[in-house]
Amino acid sequence: MRTAYHEDLDRISEQLVEMTRLAGSAMSRASRALLDADVQIAETVISADQEIDQAREDLDTLAIDLLARQAPVATELRQVVTAMRMSSDLERMGDLARHVAKVARLRYPESAVPAQARAIIMQMSQVAERIVAKAGSVIASHDLKEAASLERDDDAMDELHRQLFSLLADPAWEHSTPVAVDLTLLGRYYERFADHAVSVARRVTFLVTGEYDTATDRQEDEDAAIVGAAQQP
Amino acid sequence: MRTAYHEDLDRISEQLVEMTRLAGSAMSRASRALLDADVQIAETVISADQEIDQAREDLDTLAIDLLARQAPVATELRQVVTAMRMSSDLERMGDLARHVAKVARLRYPESAVPAQARAIIMQMSQVAERIVAKAGSVIASHDLKEAASLERDDDAMDELHRQLFSLLADPAWEHSTPVAVDLTLLGRYYERFADHAVSVARRVTFLVTGEYDTATDRQEDEDAAIVGAAQQP
Repeated sequence: MRTAYHEDLDRISEQLVEMTRLAGSAMSRASRALLDADVQIAETVISADQEIDQAREDLDTLAIDLLARQAPVATELRQVVTAMRMSSDLERMGDLARHVAKVARLRYPESAVPAQARAIIMQMSQVAERIVAKAGSVIASHDLKEAASLERDDDAMDELHRQLFSLLADPAWEHSTPVAVDLTLLGRYYERFADHAVSVARRVTFLVTGEYDTATDRQEDEDAAIVGAAQQP
Repeated sequence: MRTAYHEDLDRISEQLVEMTRLAGSAMSRASRALLDADVQIAETVISADQEIDQAREDLDTLAIDLLARQAPVATELRQVVTAMRMSSDLERMGDLARHVAKVARLRYPESAVPAQARAIIMQMSQVAERIVAKAGSVIASHDLKEAASLERDDDAMDELHRQLFSLLADPAWEHSTPVAVDLTLLGRYYERFADHAVSVARRVTFLVTGEYDTATDRQEDEDAAIVGAAQQP
């Protein structure tokens, strides 16, 4: 029984790593589609999202099956419950990559990102790629130092988000309102992508340190005020 | 054993209904703070969010405890897992209400919503209040007809979201870029609030019909393309 249990748990963990790979690839391609105004790449991201959804379904089925068959308690129960929460974060990251790709597709053959905002969006995409890669690595290694480093990547994302809103509030900004709307949504997609990656890393940390903390979920997405502050005249 | 189990499950269900009440009250007050530029009400929403977070933590502790002690299988296992997912949706709805309140606070003593956009935001807030009240009712009653009716409220929210983006793309729109940024974020908060309420109703439906469908999660938030389309010149 124990062996089957641990095999299942390993499969769940591998599936989670695979989901980070899919979400990372999706966001990386979505960013390329956005910055290069490449509608073909955008289409591949939009249609590939169902792969991540399927991976999540498979993982949840496995987890529920494991709960039913093995009735784990204590640490092992927490591992399974936490895995289901991570799969939910990762699936959402796939959705956010798809949203970025949809903005790219909508504006094709134009680019949704004007030259003035290009450097910021490019940096946001780089942080997104790095943070999701680290999330996958943390799931596999349980390396708490690396897990903590995602917080700094998230700070970098928040700082870029602030810069984006400062740019939009700058009197020198002269693009149309729909361009600002696109950039506002894009900024939010990248920032939420990073939030979910941090959430994954925190869940691993809490599993390893033995402290189960549902408060993890509420520490995300606290930047609305920060973003607002950057806009303040 | 069975009795204790069902008592626990009733408590979980009551806690979920209480969370819909808290989330509904938060969004209702946040909307008032926003439309009346009332910073005191905004503050109460921002500080009360921890009540919803606490309710979620309590519920999750109860659910994990139940899994550990009772090792439910089949329908009962699904009920507990689904309750944890619903608590996650409801906590997120509280976060979104807090975000609306933060926009109100940031713009005080001005209103973040200019006269031209007031009718749309007011209607979005009304749909939000209605949909969260119905979600609570559906959790308590398991009424599938009412559960289905949330889909129509969500359609109404999507339509309002489209109208908001059309307004922002209208050449007659003459407000500053930061105003457009605020409205873009507000529109997204209301629309995501409705998405999570629909997700709760769908989870109840799948529990009652016996069909467990993780695909529920991916049917939300499909409107990015629609919103974009409204912006298209």
